[in-house]
Amino acid sequence: MTKADVTVMIRAKKREGKVSWAAIAEAAGLSEVFVTSACLGMNSLSPEAAGKVADFLGLPSEAAIVLSEYPTKDFSRTVPTDPCIYRWYEITGVFGEAFKELVQEKFGDGIMSAIDFDMEINKIVHEKGDRVQVVMSGKFLPYKSW
Amino acid sequence: MTKADVTVMIRAKKREGKVSWAAIAEAAGLSEVFVTSACLGMNSLSPEAAGKVADFLGLPSEAAIVLSEYPTKDFSRTVPTDPCIYRWYEITGVFGEAFKELVQEKFGDGIMSAIDFDMEINKIVHEKGDRVQVVMSGKFLPYKSW
Amino acid sequence: MTKADVTVMIRAKKREGKVSWAAIAEAAGLSEVFVTSACLGMNSLSPEAAGKVADFLGLPSEAAIVLSEYPTKDFSRTVPTDPCIYRWYEITGVFGEAFKELVQEKFGDGIMSAIDFDMEINKIVHEKGDRVQVVMSGKFLPYKSW
Amino acid sequence: MTKADVTVMIRAKKREGKVSWAAIAEAAGLSEVFVTSACLGMNSLSPEAAGKVADFLGLPSEAAIVLSEYPTKDFSRTVPTDPCIYRWYEITGVFGEAFKELVQEKFGDGIMSAIDFDMEINKIVHEKGDRVQVVMSGKFLPYKSW
Amino acid sequence: MTKADVTVMIRAKKREGKVSWAAIAEAAGLSEVFVTSACLGMNSLSPEAAGKVADFLGLPSEAAIVLSEYPTKDFSRTVPTDPCIYRWYEITGVFGEAFKELVQEKFGDGIMSAIDFDMEINKIVHEKGDRVQVVMSGKFLPYKSW
Amino acid sequence: MTKADVTVMIRAKKREGKVSWAAIAEAAGLSEVFVTSACLGMNSLSPEAAGKVADFLGLPSEAAIVLSEYPTKDFSRTVPTDPCIYRWYEITGVFGEAFKELVQEKFGDGIMSAIDFDMEINKIVHEKGDRVQVVMSGKFLPYKSW
Amino acid sequence: MTKADVTVMIRAKKREGKVSWAAIAEAAGLSEVFVTSACLGMNSLSPEAAGKVADFLGLPSEAAIVLSEYPTKDFSRTVPTDPCIYRWYEITGVFGEAFKELVQEKFGDGIMSAIDFDMEINKIVHEKGDRVQVVMSGKFLPYKSW
Amino acid sequence: MTKADVTVMIRAKKREGKVSWAAIAEAAGLSEVFVTSACLGMNSLSPEAAGKVADFLGLPSEAAIVLSEYPTKDFSRTVPTDPCIYRWYEITGVFGEAFKELVQEKFGDGIMSAIDFDMEINKIVHEKGDRVQVVMSGKFLPYKSW
Amino acid sequence: MTKADVTVMIRAKKREGKVSWAAIAEAAGLSEVFVTSACLGMNSLSPEAAGKVADFLGLPSEAAIVLSEYPTKDFSRTVPTDPCIYRWYEITGVFGEAFKELVQEKFGDGIMSAIDFDMEINKIVHEKGDRVQVVMSGKFLPYKSW
Amino acid sequence: MTKADVTVMIRAKKREGKVSWAAIAEAAGLSEVFVTSACLGMNSLSPEAAGKVADFLGLPSEAAIVLSEYPTKDFSRTVPTDPCIYRWYEITGVFGEAFKELVQEKFGDGIMSAIDFDMEINKIVHEKGDRVQVVMSGKFLPYKSW
Repeated sequence: MTKADVTVMIRAKKREGKVSWAAIAEAAGLSEVFVTSACLGMNSLSPEAAGKVADFLGLPSEAAIVLSEYPTKDFSRTVPTDPCIYRWYEITGVFGEAFKELVQEKFGDGIMSAIDFDMEINKIVHEKGDRVQVVMSGKFLPYKSW
Repeated sequence: MTKADVTVMIRAKKREGKVSWAAIAEAAGLSEVFVTSACLGMNSLSPEAAGKVADFLGLPSEAAIVLSEYPTKDFSRTVPTDPCIYRWYEITGVFGEAFKELVQEKFGDGIMSAIDFDMEINKIVHEKGDRVQVVMSGKFLPYKSW
Repeated sequence: MTKADVTVMIRAKKREGKVSWAAIAEAAGLSEVFVTSACLGMNSLSPEAAGKVADFLGLPSEAAIVLSEYPTKDFSRTVPTDPCIYRWYEITGVFGEAFKELVQEKFGDGIMSAIDFDMEINKIVHEKGDRVQVVMSGKFLPYKSW
Repeated sequence: MTKADVTVMIRAKKREGKVSWAAIAEAAGLSEVFVTSACLGMNSLSPEAAGKVADFLGLPSEAAIVLSEYPTKDFSRTVPTDPCIYRWYEITGVFGEAFKELVQEKFGDGIMSAIDFDMEINKIVHEKGDRVQVVMSGKFLPYKSW
Repeated sequence: MTKADVTVMIRAKKREGKVSWAAIAEAAGLSEVFVTSACLGMNSLSPEAAGKVADFLGLPSEAAIVLSEYPTKDFSRTVPTDPCIYRWYEITGVFGEAFKELVQEKFGDGIMSAIDFDMEINKIVHEKGDRVQVVMSGKFLPYKSW
Repeated sequence: MTKADVTVMIRAKKREGKVSWAAIAEAAGLSEVFVTSACLGMNSLSPEAAGKVADFLGLPSEAAIVLSEYPTKDFSRTVPTDPCIYRWYEITGVFGEAFKELVQEKFGDGIMSAIDFDMEINKIVHEKGDRVQVVMSGKFLPYKSW
Repeated sequence: MTKADVTVMIRAKKREGKVSWAAIAEAAGLSEVFVTSACLGMNSLSPEAAGKVADFLGLPSEAAIVLSEYPTKDFSRTVPTDPCIYRWYEITGVFGEAFKELVQEKFGDGIMSAIDFDMEINKIVHEKGDRVQVVMSGKFLPYKSW
Repeated sequence: MTKADVTVMIRAKKREGKVSWAAIAEAAGLSEVFVTSACLGMNSLSPEAAGKVADFLGLPSEAAIVLSEYPTKDFSRTVPTDPCIYRWYEITGVFGEAFKELVQEKFGDGIMSAIDFDMEINKIVHEKGDRVQVVMSGKFLPYKSW
Repeated sequence: MTKADVTVMIRAKKREGKVSWAAIAEAAGLSEVFVTSACLGMNSLSPEAAGKVADFLGLPSEAAIVLSEYPTKDFSRTVPTDPCIYRWYEITGVFGEAFKELVQEKFGDGIMSAIDFDMEINKIVHEKGDRVQVVMSGKFLPYKSW
Repeated sequence: MTKADVTVMIRAKKREGKVSWAAIAEAAGLSEVFVTSACLGMNSLSPEAAGKVADFLGLPSEAAIVLSEYPTKDFSRTVPTDPCIYRWYEITGVFGEAFKELVQEKFGDGIMSAIDFDMEINKIVHEKGDRVQVVMSGKFLPYKSW
């Protein structure tokens, strides 16, 4: 049983039971973004959280083990094609250098970690059209000299 | 005179005068991220804002015209190599599908616009190490059927 | 059952029953282009429209659910090879910059949306050879400054 | 003097004189899309039309010769990055197969020519936001068997 | 049953019966190049010709239907690796610009159609070594201005 | 002085003097395709033929030396973008396997040489539209076993 | 049964019987390099040689037919990754231009054929470490002018 | 002064003085392949050999220093396009696996070094056409286990 | 049974029995890095070591044979996407040239072998956060001139 | 003045004065690897260290400013071609997964930082041939869940 197999199981359970990612995340006791990414095979859950997800969805116990295994993060499209994901790639291209300039101005030479990192996605109701809000935060890692 | 020429001028002025992006943004009356990206040639300023930037930095008047021209957004690296920008690309790969799932769950079938879009970058002081916070918001655009 | 499975079923039904895309679109109560793209897995139908398509073609009820699920738009060929599709890619290359110049001249800095978008394909009978006419329209999205 | 040199000259004249593409096209006696693409080096004008453009903009006579030379259509970005052009590439990916299906259904096995081809771009005023309308037409070319 | 399935069947029949492409083409009443490419899934035969091929080779009747369906021309190798096909790619690279210059000199601005197109392959017996002769002809398509 | 420099000179002479490739080829005493490709830097002329071309066009004597130097055949576009050249690339993709099958059927296992090779391009006047005819011939090279 | 199937069979026979490539080549009556490449699906054996290989290894008679069919040479890695093969790719990159210069100096404008070609691989015992010796020879093919 | 500058100088001297690579190699007291590759910037000569080459060709003394500097081996074409070099790339693809099998059979698990390596290129006169002979030898490097 | 099959078996045994790589390496009597890479199919074990690994894990005897077969090192991602592996790729990009400069300064023109090579990975406990230490050593191979 | 300009200056000073990287590093008071990489434009020195390097080598004062500016780490070759750097890329491919397994086994799910990172390169004298030793250490960064 692989992480891809477990993702297929979870999607089937969601379709049958009309279960939302929000409900799965609540069952796990963690955030929506993190739990969703773990269910899609891109992160690992602790054995406890994995067990809660498996229980909540009625998955076999091996699925809980698989959910807690360390994943290989494999993103197969160099340039994503789905428009929802491509727009983020485009933002990386258009604002990447500005992001780098401002991180350096505010913090010095270094980067925002993608490992010690969190993200949430919110719905902002707006009269001219609702907005997707993304709040990311990552630890600043300064370049070391030695 | 091209946008690339103006970026070189602005960098020279910054080096000479120790001017920050924050100060240039304040002079323009707009946000740091947007003004920085416009100074790097990835967005256009209104003639008024462009004039303020040119005045503040002591650039020739043609530079103000160039800053207000519509840019061609050309990002030459399919996969960015600078670590500060690559991490964002990695986030797109690792969390792109989770982002898509949650946008769809919260809003329906559609995307977050990268055009009707804004972003800010904040420094969060933290005892275990400061954090870079990015807050992005884009209008939700539902797929149309017809 | 995946969207690809449903596409295979629909093609089989079409071959058996000599059903046209036009007839399927009429059954769905939507346009030919949109319904065809949904049957090929690139767009989602509303549950009502999906049900009508499934009924019309005699597909199992799960197929209707699958047709209404949100798709991941995955186009696997960076440069399309089929001549019918390549010509459109070529038009993007040859006329892309002219398109951008004219959109900007007529509307200001911004883009034509590919999400709030519609298209129709018509046959124009012509004595020197019939012509394929494509009429696309997308909402103009102006770049925001902030 | 190359086509790229002439494009630089034309852009300089436009900036100085606030001349629109529409006005250049009118001077040439041809459509906006075609004349703009020729001025960008992607098509050739007849000597007469080239002369009219050169006269209208005050370009040297060699520029008229260059505008009438046959171009090499060279689009350097396999996947375009500018959002305005990328959206068209995305439309090719998302709707390419549906386009092919409908052309075949309406005309038989064959393609829409990108050579015996025309296009216009219109502004459709709309209360929920103006729309960019593109109308393309190309001769249907049936596959020959022999 | 797909075009790939039918190609496998045809190859099996050829191996068993030592049937040549020339014989299949003769049965179809069409040229060798066209019939071979159709049997390899790159072109469609008319229902009549497809029926003749299926009868001649003893294929099931569904195969005839499949042979007459419109193909998606999908060539998976951007740069072909088989030496026999690569040499043609090399000729495209080495002589492509010369071909373009001479087509333009003889016909004006335009292209040789790859759709209204035919080709034959002949064996020229020669004392210093036999030669492969390829004769291709395609309709000249002039660029249209509008 | 490089082959690229000589090509620029030849194009300038052609523009000034309205000299055709056919006339240059006649001066060289060789075929149009070969002489054009040599003038574009993709083949070498014998010193005699190079001298005739230089004399005919009034090029400096060093140009004749350069025309007779052995070229490095460098085709920079993996997939050509100019439509006139792309169509040939498409023919390679669509008919490459059929070509291989028929060469093997007629000659055995081997290839058509792209070195011991010649090509001519003819204009076939036709009432439904003139046709570009390409006649290529290359020595058959059988695979050797040892 | 495909060439890939036969390669799997041959590898199984080799593992079972500890049969060397040298022994298979001797059975075929041909060289090691050629027979090994044919067993790996990259060349065809004559029916006689194929029969000898099949007999020697105890393969079914269809395998002999498959070994004598003309292969499609398909090398799937643009840049090989196995170190043993990569080093040869590296030699092509590092010494390719020197090779070309010396072939031209010794023979004139032309190439070494990869079709009328042979190769052997020898072990040279050497006190400072044994050496792999590769001896390749290919017919010189001069460029033709016409 | 870079290695590329020195290569240009050497080519100019060769053109003027009709000096062969063989003569330069003899002046250096080293082999043709190695000296040619060093003159093309892909290897370094010892200061003594570099001095001899510079003296022989009448190059400035800085050129000798540059010839003895350690090069960065940069081969810009992933797939070479010049036919003379491509054929070698093709041999790597077609015979790479057979080469690996035979090296392993004769020597064990390991590779042929491309560093402790030599090569010569010979002309074999042959009545059916002269042959290019390449003799390469590289130290066998066994994989280490630890 | 392939190396990939054996890797799957080993992973299953590890999951069941909570066996560490360290324990497998100890059973084999070799280092952790080497044994892990061999179990992942990237290196070969001696028959003795392979037998010990198979015994320790309770694998079938054929698995031991497969573990001792010479592998084809095939790394399918040109740019690795897993963050843990990507960081190493990034180090290659950022420090590759400095590494080359220092190897040359300390040893002369040449390279560090990746074949006569070993590596260990250590955990360095550190109060500000533990550190991963990698110690690699490879034989220096000087470029040969000849 | 750019970082690339400063690198050219430093290389010229090194050639003139036979200055080693070791000596420059000693002048800077930092390690060889870090200082070399900063001089090659891939890292930034503190203003103090940059001043010491500039003084030691006799560079203009602007060079010191440039050496202390934050770099954009741009590695232009997706797959490096220089053998000395390629071998490291190969190690990443061959041992990347083993490295990941062992880091996870020793530390848990996470990565070795390439930012909080150091490296040294040593010469190990060895009777069977000297060895290049690389010692790298990077902070372990555990994946965060939230």
